[in-house]
Formats: sequence, C-alpha cells, structure tokens
Amino acid sequence: MNQKPVLRFGLPKGSLQEATIEKMAKAGFNVSVSSRSYIPYVDDEEMEIRLIRAQEISRYVEHGYLDCGITGHDWIIENGSKVHEVGEFLFSKVSRRPARWVLCVPENSPVKSVKDLEGKRIATEVVNLTKKYLKKHGVKAEVEFSWGATEVKAHELVDAIVEVTETGSSLRANKLRIVDELLSSTPRLVANVDAWKNKWKRQKIETLSMLLKGALEAETKVGLKMNIAAANVAKLLQSLPALRNPTVSSLSQSGWVAVETIIDEHVVRELIPALKAAGAEGIIEYPLNKVVY
Amino acid sequence: MNQKPVLRFGLPKGSLQEATIEKMAKAGFNVSVSSRSYIPYVDDEEMEIRLIRAQEISRYVEHGYLDCGITGHDWIIENGSKVHEVGEFLFSKVSRRPARWVLCVPENSPVKSVKDLEGKRIATEVVNLTKKYLKKHGVKAEVEFSWGATEVKAHELVDAIVEVTETGSSLRANKLRIVDELLSSTPRLVANVDAWKNKWKRQKIETLSMLLKGALEAETKVGLKMNIAAANVAKLLQSLPALRNPTVSSLSQSGWVAVETIIDEHVVRELIPALKAAGAEGIIEYPLNKVVY
Amino acid sequence: MNQKPVLRFGLPKGSLQEATIEKMAKAGFNVSVSSRSYIPYVDDEEMEIRLIRAQEISRYVEHGYLDCGITGHDWIIENGSKVHEVGEFLFSKVSRRPARWVLCVPENSPVKSVKDLEGKRIATEVVNLTKKYLKKHGVKAEVEFSWGATEVKAHELVDAIVEVTETGSSLRANKLRIVDELLSSTPRLVANVDAWKNKWKRQKIETLSMLLKGALEAETKVGLKMNIAAANVAKLLQSLPALRNPTVSSLSQSGWVAVETIIDEHVVRELIPALKAAGAEGIIEYPLNKVVY
Amino acid sequence: MNQKPVLRFGLPKGSLQEATIEKMAKAGFNVSVSSRSYIPYVDDEEMEIRLIRAQEISRYVEHGYLDCGITGHDWIIENGSKVHEVGEFLFSKVSRRPARWVLCVPENSPVKSVKDLEGKRIATEVVNLTKKYLKKHGVKAEVEFSWGATEVKAHELVDAIVEVTETGSSLRANKLRIVDELLSSTPRLVANVDAWKNKWKRQKIETLSMLLKGALEAETKVGLKMNIAAANVAKLLQSLPALRNPTVSSLSQSGWVAVETIIDEHVVRELIPALKAAGAEGIIEYPLNKVVY
Amino acid sequence: MNQKPVLRFGLPKGSLQEATIEKMAKAGFNVSVSSRSYIPYVDDEEMEIRLIRAQEISRYVEHGYLDCGITGHDWIIENGSKVHEVGEFLFSKVSRRPARWVLCVPENSPVKSVKDLEGKRIATEVVNLTKKYLKKHGVKAEVEFSWGATEVKAHELVDAIVEVTETGSSLRANKLRIVDELLSSTPRLVANVDAWKNKWKRQKIETLSMLLKGALEAETKVGLKMNIAAANVAKLLQSLPALRNPTVSSLSQSGWVAVETIIDEHVVRELIPALKAAGAEGIIEYPLNKVVY
Amino acid sequence: MNQKPVLRFGLPKGSLQEATIEKMAKAGFNVSVSSRSYIPYVDDEEMEIRLIRAQEISRYVEHGYLDCGITGHDWIIENGSKVHEVGEFLFSKVSRRPARWVLCVPENSPVKSVKDLEGKRIATEVVNLTKKYLKKHGVKAEVEFSWGATEVKAHELVDAIVEVTETGSSLRANKLRIVDELLSSTPRLVANVDAWKNKWKRQKIETLSMLLKGALEAETKVGLKMNIAAANVAKLLQSLPALRNPTVSSLSQSGWVAVETIIDEHVVRELIPALKAAGAEGIIEYPLNKVVY
Repeated sequence: MNQKPVLRFGLPKGSLQEATIEKMAKAGFNVSVSSRSYIPYVDDEEMEIRLIRAQEISRYVEHGYLDCGITGHDWIIENGSKVHEVGEFLFSKVSRRPARWVLCVPENSPVKSVKDLEGKRIATEVVNLTKKYLKKHGVKAEVEFSWGATEVKAHELVDAIVEVTETGSSLRANKLRIVDELLSSTPRLVANVDAWKNKWKRQKIETLSMLLKGALEAETKVGLKMNIAAANVAKLLQSLPALRNPTVSSLSQSGWVAVETIIDEHVVRELIPALKAAGAEGIIEYPLNKVVY
Repeated sequence: MNQKPVLRFGLPKGSLQEATIEKMAKAGFNVSVSSRSYIPYVDDEEMEIRLIRAQEISRYVEHGYLDCGITGHDWIIENGSKVHEVGEFLFSKVSRRPARWVLCVPENSPVKSVKDLEGKRIATEVVNLTKKYLKKHGVKAEVEFSWGATEVKAHELVDAIVEVTETGSSLRANKLRIVDELLSSTPRLVANVDAWKNKWKRQKIETLSMLLKGALEAETKVGLKMNIAAANVAKLLQSLPALRNPTVSSLSQSGWVAVETIIDEHVVRELIPALKAAGAEGIIEYPLNKVVY
Repeated sequence: MNQKPVLRFGLPKGSLQEATIEKMAKAGFNVSVSSRSYIPYVDDEEMEIRLIRAQEISRYVEHGYLDCGITGHDWIIENGSKVHEVGEFLFSKVSRRPARWVLCVPENSPVKSVKDLEGKRIATEVVNLTKKYLKKHGVKAEVEFSWGATEVKAHELVDAIVEVTETGSSLRANKLRIVDELLSSTPRLVANVDAWKNKWKRQKIETLSMLLKGALEAETKVGLKMNIAAANVAKLLQSLPALRNPTVSSLSQSGWVAVETIIDEHVVRELIPALKAAGAEGIIEYPLNKVVY
Repeated sequence: MNQKPVLRFGLPKGSLQEATIEKMAKAGFNVSVSSRSYIPYVDDEEMEIRLIRAQEISRYVEHGYLDCGITGHDWIIENGSKVHEVGEFLFSKVSRRPARWVLCVPENSPVKSVKDLEGKRIATEVVNLTKKYLKKHGVKAEVEFSWGATEVKAHELVDAIVEVTETGSSLRANKLRIVDELLSSTPRLVANVDAWKNKWKRQKIETLSMLLKGALEAETKVGLKMNIAAANVAKLLQSLPALRNPTVSSLSQSGWVAVETIIDEHVVRELIPALKAAGAEGIIEYPLNKVVY
Repeated sequence: MNQKPVLRFGLPKGSLQEATIEKMAKAGFNVSVSSRSYIPYVDDEEMEIRLIRAQEISRYVEHGYLDCGITGHDWIIENGSKVHEVGEFLFSKVSRRPARWVLCVPENSPVKSVKDLEGKRIATEVVNLTKKYLKKHGVKAEVEFSWGATEVKAHELVDAIVEVTETGSSLRANKLRIVDELLSSTPRLVANVDAWKNKWKRQKIETLSMLLKGALEAETKVGLKMNIAAANVAKLLQSLPALRNPTVSSLSQSGWVAVETIIDEHVVRELIPALKAAGAEGIIEYPLNKVVY
Repeated sequence: MNQKPVLRFGLPKGSLQEATIEKMAKAGFNVSVSSRSYIPYVDDEEMEIRLIRAQEISRYVEHGYLDCGITGHDWIIENGSKVHEVGEFLFSKVSRRPARWVLCVPENSPVKSVKDLEGKRIATEVVNLTKKYLKKHGVKAEVEFSWGATEVKAHELVDAIVEVTETGSSLRANKLRIVDELLSSTPRLVANVDAWKNKWKRQKIETLSMLLKGALEAETKVGLKMNIAAANVAKLLQSLPALRNPTVSSLSQSGWVAVETIIDEHVVRELIPALKAAGAEGIIEYPLNKVVY
C-alpha cells in the first residue's frame, strides 16, 4: 500500500507567529491554530505544519523531524545546523533592513572596541556566535546566556551585551552604544539535506518557496496606474526608468492612454510628484498579494 | 403623508458579528456598533440593522419583526421557520467547507452507528434536529439541551453528542469519533414571506444579496495578471483552462502582451508554477473587494 | 558645515493615533511607535515625527516647534492659532460627514434656542469656541471646561453642553437634543508660517500633502472593472456618467471589451445593479492605496 | 480490593466560576483550573471537581453523574430535577438580595398584569418556569427560548420577557417595567438522592456544606473590637443588642476592658457612631474567613 | 408629603475609581457600577453616588449639584472652589507621601530657580495654580494648558512643566529635575456650604467621613498579637512605646500572657526583630478593615 | 564622607513577579514597578530592588552585583552558583508541594527507566542538571536546550524531556508519563558570600528573611477563635492537639470562655466538624498577614 507523501514544515512560534501565518495565507496556504491542539490546520493535505520557536527550527530540520522550516540566518549559525538553504526573504516592511546582532555597551562606557573586553563579562542570547566572534578577535571574555531583558543588563550586571536590533531605536532608548556588528540576519527557508534529495519533497519545497517569495515581494511592491496623453508617453518612460516595462492601454477618451506597472512601494512617494510633473493624471496605486518574476 | 420605506435587516450577533460587519462593509454598507445603543448605525437611510443571535434570526424573520436576515441553514431547520430563502453564501475561507452537525462519541466508545444509541442520552444545542434524526432511524433516546462545552460532556455526562464542526480538529483534540452526519449547513440570506411580496423590499433585498454575494465571492477570488510573449498566448490559454476569458493588452515592449483574469484563490498555488513553465513573467496577484458575474 | 534639513511633523496622539499611522503607511511613510521612546521611527531620514494630542498640535505648529502637523479645524479655531492651512482631508469613512460641534440639551429641556441659555451654565471641551458663539448671539452664560464624559453632565450638572458628534448616535443614546451647530470640522494639514516660506520645507510639505490626500482619497474610492459587448459600450457610458473616462481594452473573446474605472465606493451599491442591467458581466471591484488626480 | 471513595462535586462554570472557586478556597478547598484540562485540580484526594454550566448542574446531579453540586434554586425548578437540597447560601454581597425572575415589559407598554399577555409572545431563558406561571394564571401566550440579550427584545421582538435581576438597575437602564415576580432564587447545594443515602458521601457533603456556609457567612460578617472603661460596659451592652455575647478582656491600662464580637458588616456603619457615643475607643473592624455557629 | 432625604455624593471617576469604590466598601458602602447606567448602585437608600472626574468634583459641590464629594486638595485650589472641608485622608499606601505638584525642567536645563523662567513657556494641567505661583515670585511667563503627556513636553515643546508626582520615579525616568514644589496635596472630603448647614446632611456626611477615615486608617495599620512570659511584659511595654495600650490576656499555659495591639504597618518590619529579642513568641500580624479612635 | 549603606536585592521577574511583590508587601516592603523604569520603587531607603529572571538571579548574587535574591533551588543547582543559602520558603498555596523536575516520556513510550535513554535525545531547560543526572546513571544521551513548550516536544521532536511540574496536571493533559524525579525545588533566599560577612548587610538580610518567612507562613495559617463552656475546655484541648497553646479569655456570659489559636489552614476543614462535636460555638476563622514564631 502506498501512503500519500507529506511535507513537514516548521513555522516560527511566538512573536513572529501571527505575521508568518498571515504571509502563508498570502502565499495561498490558510493555516489556523487551535488553542486545543498543538498541530495547526492547513488547507493542504500534502503539508503538515509545526509551530516551533525560531531558535530551534534549524535543529529539528537538521535532525529530519521537519522537512523544511522558516527561521533566521542568525539561529542557523548559532546552532551550527547543517541544512540546505532554499531561499532568503525580503527585509521587514518597516525599515527594509535586516536584523543585526551587535555588540553594545552603555553610552558612557570606556569600551571602544572588542579589544577592550578582555577579561570582561558579556550577556547574550547567542552564546556560540559571540564566543566565535571573540575568538576571531583574540579576546578572552566570559560569555553568559541571557534569558531575556538583555539590554537592561548592560548597565549593571555585565560589561557588554550582544543583542539584536533592527532600527536601533530600542538600543538608543536604553542609552546603549553599538561597538561592532557581529552578524546581519534575514529569514531563510531551509530544508533537511535528505528531504532536498527527494524529488517530490524538493518540488513541493520549491513551489512553497516561490509562493512565499511572491507574497513577501508583494508586501514591498504596489501596482501603479495612470492616464497620460499618448504624445507624452515616450518622454515619461524615458525620464522615469523606475516604470519598467509598463502595460499601455487605450482610453475611451481619444489621444489618451493608460500606463500601468509594478513598482517598489517606497519609491512611490518620490515618483508621484514626478509623474504629475510629467503630465500624468488620475494616478492610482493598488495593493498586491503576490509578485512572481 | 407618505413615510419613507425601510428594510429591517438582522445580522448575527456574537462570534460572527465582526466578520459579518466586515463583509457588509465590503458589500458597500458601513455598519458601526456603539456600546451605548443596541441599534447599530448603517450609512443607508433605507435600512435598519438589528444584531440578533444567529439561533434566533429565522424566528424573527418569520414573525415579520425583521424583513430579512443572515443566519445558518441549520438554525432555519432547527427552528422550523417558514421563510423565503434568497441566497446561499460561499463557505468559510479557512477550509472552504460548510459547517457540519455530526453525531459524536468518545474514540473508545462501543457505539458504532445511530442504532447503538437506543435508550441512551444525547446532549446537543440542536434538540429538534437531533430528535428528527433519531425518529428517522427509529431510535429512541433521550435528547437534552446543552448550554455549551458540549464536547466535554461526551466523555462523562452523556453517551453521545450532536455538535457542529468545520475541520474536525476540535473533535480530534477532544478525542471524539464522528459516527454520522446529520446536516451540512451554509449561511443563508432569508426574507419574510410578506416582505418578499412587497416590490420595494424585494428589490432592496435582491440588491443586498447581489452585493453581499459579490463581496463573499471576492474573498475566494483574486485578480491575476502576467506578461507573456504574444506568440505564446494561445498555447497558454489552451493548456490552462482556469484562465477563463482573460483581458489581453499590448505592452510597451513590442511582441509582448499582458494577460489578466479573475481566478479562485486556492488554485493559484498550483497555477503559478505552471504559468512560469508556460513562459509567463511578472506574474502579479491582487486582492478583490467584489466579484459579480 | 551643512546639516541635512529635516521636517518636524506632528501627528495626533491618542484615539486617532493608530488610524493616522495607518494612513501615513498608505501615503508611503512607515511609522513605528516604541513604548520605550517618545519619538516614533519613520523610514524617511528627512522627517521627524512627534505624537501630540490633537488639541495641542496647532499651538506647537504656531510656535515653530513643529514645521507642520495634522489636526482638526475645530482645535485650530479653539486655540486661535495662526498657521498656514495646507490641505483639508476627506471625511470619515463610516459616515462621510465632518465632525460637528453642537449645542445640546436633554430631550425634555425647555431650552429651544441659544437665547434660552441666558444666565445658564454650559460645559464643554471647547471653551473659547463656545464663548465666541454666545457672544455672537448676545447671550451671557457661564462656560466651564469639561474634562470628559460631557454628555452625562447635560442631565444633571449643567444646563447645556457643547459636544462633538459625527452620526449623532451617541447623543441619541444619551437622550440629548441638538439645539444648534457651532462648527463643522474636518482634519487639516497645517504648516508653521515660517516653515511655509522655506522652499525645501514647503516642497516637502506639499509632497506629503499630496500623498496623504491620495491615501485618504483612496479610502473612499475603488477600482471597478467589467466585461461588456463592444456594441454596448457607448450606451453604457452614456447612461452611467459615474463611469468617468474609463480604460477600454480588448478581450481575447472577440466582440467583447473590458471597461475599467475609478469610482466612489459608496455609489457602487447603486451602480452594480445598473451595470448588470446594461449588459455588464464579470464585474469586479478592487481596493486602492492611493488616488492622485 | 477496596477503592478509595471519591465525591464528585459540580461547580458552576462561566460567570460565577471565579467567585465560586474563591469561596471554595475560603472554605478550605483550593481548586485550580488549567486551560489544558477540563478537570480542575483540588487539594483533596477524596473529591473530584467538575465545572458545568449552572443551568445543567441539577440535571447531572439527578442522573447521578455528580454526587452533589452548587446551582441556583431557579434552575433546579426550571429543570424539574429531583435532588436532595442540602443547604441554601446567603445572598450576594452587593445587594444582600436574592436573584429574582421577573416578568417585564417596556415602561410605556399597555401591559399592566399577566392577564394582559393573553395571545402575546414572551421571550425567556426559563421556558418551563414561565409556562407554569402562565398556566397558573390561566393565560395562554407563546413562550420562546431566548439565547441571550433578552432585555433588548422586550422593546421590539416580543411583548414581554421573563428575566433575572438582582438590583433592577439593568432593567431600569433598558427602560423596562416589572409587572410581576415569578421566582426568587438563591444558590443551593444539592445532592443526588442515592449519594445522600451513602454514609460516607453524606458526611463528606455535610462537612462541605458546613465549611462553605461558614465561608459565605464570613463574607457578610466582621469582627469588631473596642476599648471601653469597665464602668461603661454594662450600659454599652444593654443599649446595643447587636453586640451579642462579646468577649471581654482586661487591658493593661487599669479600669479599661476590651470588648470583642462578631457582627453583620452592614450594621457597622450605623453602629460605630453609636459606639463612639457610648464611650468606646480604639474601635477596630477586622475581616473573617469563616463563621460557623 | 414628606420626601425621604438623600445625600448626593461625588466620587472620582477614572484612574482612582476602582480604589475609591474598594475603600467605600471597606467603609461599609457597597457601590457597583454598571456599564449601562451612569448612576452607580449603592446599598444605602439615603445616598446617591455620582462618578465625576476628580478635577471637577469641587466645582459641582460648590454649585450644590452634589452635597459632598471626594477630591484632591490640588483641584479645590486650582478651581478656587468655596466648599467646606470635612476631612483629610491618609496618604497613599505605596509611598505614605502626599502628591506633590512640582516645577520641573530637563536634567541639563540651565533653569535653576523659578526666576530663570522669565519670558519662558510652561505647560501644565493646573494653569491657575501655576499662574498664582509665578505671580507670587514676580515672574512673567506664558502658562499653557497641557492635555496630557506633560512630562515629554519639557524636553522639546516648552521650557518647563508643572506636573504631579508621588515618588518622583516617573520624573527620573523622563530625565527631569525638580526645581521647586508648588503644592502638596492629599484627598479631601468636601461638603457644599448649605448642605453642611442642614442637620440631617451634616450628620450623614460626618458619619461617612468617620467610616471612610476608619477604612483608610485601617489600610496603614495592622493588628499585632504575641505570647510572652508574664514576667517580661512590663519590660516589653516600657522598651517599646509603639505598643500603645495593649490588651493583655492570660494563656492556657500558666505564667504566659497574650499581648495584642494595633500598630502602624510600616513600623512592623523594625518592631518584629525587637519583639523577638524581648522574648515575644508566636507573633502574628493580621489585617484590619477599619480603625476608629 | 560616609555613604549610606544599601542592600541590593533581586526579585524574580516574569511569571512569579506579581506574587513576589504581593508577598514583599505582606512582609512590609511596598514595591511598585513602573513601565518607564527598570528599577522598581521600594519604600525602604536602605534597599534597592532589581527584577531579574529567576534563572539568572543566583548568578548575579554569586558575582556580587546583587547582595541577595530570591530564586529556586533548581536554578542555584543548574547554574552551580556558590551562594549562601539564608532561608527556604514554604510551598505553593495551591498544592502545598515543591516544584519537581521530572524525566517524562509519552504515555505509550517504551522507555521505562533512565537506562532506556542510552543514545537518545532529551530536551530540557535545565541542561546541566540533566547531564549530571545522566552521568550519575551512566547513561549517554544527547541533551539539548529547550526554549519553551517542552512538553509538546516529547511526542515528536525528542525521545524524552526533563520538565518542571507541581501537581502533574499539565503533564497528564499532554499525555506524558513520569519516569523519574531529578530534583525537588523550593524558593530560597540566597546571599552573596561577601555580603553575608558584612555585619550591616547580614542583619538586614536576616530581618528580611524573618519578615518574608513570617508573611509566607501566614499564607498557610489562619487564626481560629471559638466560644465554649469553661467546663469543656480541658477536654477540648486534650482531644485536639492541633490547638497548640491557645489564648483563653472570659466571656461576658458567665461560665463560658473564648479560646483562640493559630492553626494550619488546611487542617481547618477537618477540625471544624470536630470542634462543633466537642461543644464549640461561634467558631470564627480570620486571615493573617504574618506569623513569626
């Protein structure tokens, strides 16, 4: 008897959970979590979802309990997990920057570089990463695992911390100064090495990757459409290279055309005044669910 | 003196309330509920909204206190209400399946079919429906009304329950086994029989039904747009019948066209890899508010 | 040394905060508020955001602590602030009506007009506005500042109140009667007089205004697209002037075209039945992020 | 082999749950509810707790699934359950009044007595109780089960309601008038008839009842202690009969004694001024956990 | 016809509401607030409660809409209300200190005294109090009403603020420095001047005051009881004057007595080690509901 | 210049935080936590509080950043911290049992003893404790740190877990079986070794310990008082040794005495029926704040 193949897929539990489930929905996979069961429902009979802390996903993908999973580059490195990296996802919508693990000290600390930490004590959630970094710089310091609220510790309990930041605003609020950056990290889709060799699983993972990337890409893109006199189109396109390969359609009003394209959302705020200046009218921007090149 | 006609419309209060108000907004009717008043505001002077428990709506439509309302097929049957059914709505987004009232017993119960319930006790919220079902099967059993938490009762307090489920995951979490299905139920728009005979009210209800259906339909559909070499269009459309009657527009890049269509969201995840394989580029998916055929 | 110019922009803190940040995001400016810092992050290095109570924004714009800000017309008048008004925004989505400051009394009060308030006591959050109004009508009455829950006071503590309302439903719930309207108010973007004279700041504010207006406009508009036999297009457009200047594209099915336009969302519910009647098929409505004419 | 006997005890789930568990703790039984299990923990190996809706407890006690339970007199009557009533508990702390099921109509309804309801429709949660009441008064009316928000229905959906009230303030807020009282109800401890015949169970239930009563009694009592000149004690006790059988102890200051007693909390506010007037000093009031006469 | 007299009593709405209702309950008056009615229930037919912002209570007591009310000394002064002050209550439990309105500037501000504020701008909720203070010091400065979040304004929007503080920790967290103290404020029970002349109302207010004071007093006191050899009592009492006028009772164990007294809770932590040193055993501390001297 | 000495005291942050602060208040130290500052306020100028995760407190006490702290015996062992143990506190009120770290497997696992884990993988928060335990039993297994939700992992991701439990109900809900117990743990007050040698600090810590113990002791004790005929006292005391060394006072009613004592709360439920049987009347139980022997 032939059992139906299933892909076991790990999603990050906790603070990223809701956002990830929303992105999965945009990718076309509706996941619903019940408080009564630790196995979420997904409307795809070929897939099984597990919600696991981001810190642990790469470990369980490596061991083969999961075929693939989404986790940060940082935790793959921290765990030293041997996994196949399928794809890297776009940065957060807010800052469009990756997460950064940085070495920090209080603003008024005498520590100016990693060298000044010789014989000191450092608190962090990423103990292995920090030890490797210190070794690389030939510095001997005590590294201790921090169970949370690491930023507060820098002022009293330890000499420095290694903490994650995106915009740096939480560090500033805690009056901390960045001494160095250890690692820049983005979310990754990783696969178990054996699963990746299995044809059915690999194809399923690749499709999943394409759809997720399409959904994430769509979060940073918008559709832009405008009317313009046909006579001005050539000039418009020439002067605004951001309008890559647009659709041009005729309008019912003769001599006018509609121009439509997909564009990075964050350039729209500079583009719209320029479009107006170039003679565009009735400019509309609309949201996208997926963008697959 | 001629008073302005008004349509009295019942919406389900409670767990479905927020979702229904959101769908009404998509249909074009903005409803806002104040904690200080039991009559919600709606931006249509020809309509009055009442929020009533889904279990009771069909009863008040039948009595004529409401001209129409949205409720489940299950409660129309349970109440035995004589109402005109105007429309049936699409299934839930998560599972795309209707709600099902099922006869359940603990996993390890000796009960294998309804016949084994002779002389037993059953707890349920749908007492009439359950009694009718037992009668049809010639089984005599005690049916008692359950005020809630019915699933827990199956293990200790009664011999079986009749409970509603969508994906079955809550039943599995409670270690219950489905013995039989009594009824499959979807949301309906129902009208009072006399209101349906009134020309103004009927037209208003039909428009409402069309817009609501359009909004619900739109939740399961998406817009899909892609660029493709004009030479490949015919093959693309032939091999992918899901792309029904698409719009084809010329692109500024000669020899290429844009193809656009509306499609079931849940097929997108299979379709996109196929489209890529067929030569499509720059595939985008965008959300819809309404789809009216 | 040349410092980079920065625009200091005040957004209303409190009940409107979340909605304003959402609109800013639609305008293309991603703002994130941290509980640890009173300065929100915005992904534009040329801008600094401050969250300040709507009641106070015009005052700090006048003083020059802010270059510009969003606040209501009511508070600009109440504060008597000398600021440059850059733009007025559209009304709320729910009622499409401006906020109104109204003079109210209990339903059964003998007060029929402002004249009946001679020698009485009035509670309000807008003390200056109310005093000016009384003076205009030659009425002498005591006006006292109300710290909140003003509606309740009308029944016991004072003779009348001046309170803000949008749909009037909260007044009705409190059994209050509107005697007169003092002011109708919409949100405004206001600039400091000197900032407006600075070329860089003025251009930045005008772009901001255009994008915000575009985002707000988009909340009340939708895109509408439909298929129709080419033969019927002329008649359709003639009979439905709401379909201003639509895009007309050919469909793959010969003899049919796609018609697309932007339209006020609240007319859609009347328009769709008419479009169906005129032979339109496959009507879809889709959401917009920005509309800039 | 002899199994240890266990008492199965039903506590009301839902709105009364937290208060009941707090009273159980005061009675000496610490119960903790886990979101992961439907069987609460209790620190008594001879007891098993079940949380069941108050409306259903008497039914499951009657059937023998529970040995005893706490529920309202109203639901015992509504269900017509044959159970042994072990004890009645004191009224709520707020109003010191029992719950009352009352027949209500809108303030301006023409209905003045139950007789005026002939041929009308009544909504209620207690259908049996209402039918019995109508029969007793020889009135024929339709009684329909209300799933909630019954008070709102009286104004539009039915002609009258039968609803529960304690202070009447919610009825007044809904502009309802009480026409008649059907039943006054207090919480009861009820036992299964067979369990009551079992010596071990009966003794366990009686102890439970004594401790619960002691805990509830203590909620309405306080300890009162004061110093007074020995010469004034006799007069004090004579003039204040509320000070039943007090403890009198000597103070270190000669000629003075301490008087201590237990007293109804709600008379303290009248008593203290009187005590002061009678020469008492250093009056203290302290809380009690249990009072068992 | 003789109507029953009623005392209209104002309690502070908002942040202090819950605490005040709890204290009222300890004083013997059970108040319950319904979300459906603005008039709270109280179990005393001679009293009517109104919940009003603390800032406004003295004004409505002065006008006679309330017979009495609880509010802060600060708001009585700010409003300049002519009311009779019946009693002052004890300080908050946390810090045992009154609230203080203080003039603050950023830590690094050049402002060292009120004199340095000449020509500057100050934000505060207590505009009148601040103006009076400036006048007293002969300083001319602009004072503007702050609608909230005043602490944040000190850094950017104004030159100084006048804000309320208890422990100063929020000021320190905002990096503000106290320049001067304007007013120290405790809660007061105030009466309308005419109500105070009415014999029935005055007696009712005085009883209320006595009971409330008793309840508040009890929050800072505890009962203390211990066993000690009779031979050591005299020495114990002599060396520990805090043990004022204790009750001394004989124990069943001969030669030992029990000593009991009421004491300030915050001295217990120093007292207990001393009592142990003096030979006391079995020391217990118990809570009190009321203490009336 | 002589600086005032201060004791730096660590309290567990997180799930135990609120309970610990409540116990501190009972001990006589009022602590208040501000969301704006990481240093809580305490009403003792000789003390500074730090809130730190229970897992880390012993480490910072060992390093001397804290003079003392409250943490579990488990984390002291897991961290291998060299600290002076000042006192052990009573068990939780609910179960009166210590926390236990137990080795668990799924109910249907073949693992019967630790020996069966050779070559397997174990997830736990206490990696060091688990490794030491395995070494003691001569078992080689992989131990991996679990970031949370450890119970769920036992079914799929690892072969066994080491998890903490109090009543075992969460383990049962997760269908896990306890194989062995590694450690039983209670909360401890620990001091830094040097701080303990400092006379002032040691005395401060000892007082703190006495007061905290007194407060915790009081949570499991109650005061019990009853009236009884003087003739029956001797018999009562003889037959009920739980009534240790009670106070006996005369009542105003001749021939009767009041008997009062302190007793374990959890024996009250057995004691009260016995007291009634022995002739006691008017039995009252009252709560305690502190009990110091």
